Amino acid sequence: MNKKSFQDYYPDELSHCYGCGRLNEEGLRLKSYWDGEETVAVFVPRPYHIAIPGYVYGGLIASIIDCHGTGTASAAVYRAEGRKMGTEPPLRFVTASLRVDYVRPTPMGVPLEVRGKIKEVKGRKVVVSATVSAGGEVCAKGEVVAVKMPEQMMPKSKAT
Amino acid sequence: MNKKSFQDYYPDELSHCYGCGRLNEEGLRLKSYWDGEETVAVFVPRPYHIAIPGYVYGGLIASIIDCHGTGTASAAVYRAEGRKMGTEPPLRFVTASLRVDYVRPTPMGVPLEVRGKIKEVKGRKVVVSATVSAGGEVCAKGEVVAVKMPEQMMPKSKAT
Repeated sequence: MNKKSFQDYYPDELSHCYGCGRLNEEGLRLKSYWDGEETVAVFVPRPYHIAIPGYVYGGLIASIIDCHGTGTASAAVYRAEGRKMGTEPPLRFVTASLRVDYVRPTPMGVPLEVRGKIKEVKGRKVVVSATVSAGGEVCAKGEVVAVKMPEQMMPKSKAT
Repeated sequence: MNKKSFQDYYPDELSHCYGCGRLNEEGLRLKSYWDGEETVAVFVPRPYHIAIPGYVYGGLIASIIDCHGTGTASAAVYRAEGRKMGTEPPLRFVTASLRVDYVRPTPMGVPLEVRGKIKEVKGRKVVVSATVSAGGEVCAKGEVVAVKMPEQMMPKSKAT
């Protein structure tokens, strides 16, 4: 895809996240996009992202739900406020709670599709439900409660 | 510590987990131990395991709760059955559901202590509650519902 992902709009100092920061060279670099009213990200697990051989590690699944959830929260609030993605002040969300139900073992060797739905946008809080599918079958369902990043978490280089 | 961790008792073919497999060279290699009636693991995040700079990535916290939960489940059932860790047939658990509440931002640069408590052992299911602390302060609380690994997940080299 040529279009920019939600995470590509995060300012540099907030783009180091292991799960989705474009500036984290060791990280997963998840990228999330709008798909109508839903959001979508595709991630291909690396060969070492296994749990039991043949199946994807549950912590990785939790990680991509987490970052897709906070990315979706950011995009949802930009949209709700009628603002273009990336305009100042940045809308960056962190996770208050994460829940994942592993519906069936997730097979290795196929791209995973993460889909998000916005359940609630209220004040500083956004609730996003998510599914992770492999080959069209839902393997995990999750929910992320995302909250706007507290000011005190802002890296000092930006805050000054 | 010289003593063996729960995960060190997993048979080789079940020791490739990204979060805790001793044979996964790219992985986190979490190691969990008894501490009285509780269980404990210590993990030092790597420099790239960040979310917002200065703070630990939430997906990593979910991952160490996940593997500490399934390891605790294994140890709990060995203990409940009066069996020595590592005796056949292996007791290996996978995650049915995972919940993490991020109580406060988790600082980088200090070891994280994961503590588990066994809430329930019933049939194939074990429920473990967990906390993740940094410098003595609880930063995250979690719960893992672990279930005994289904037979069909057993790697074929073992199942034949």
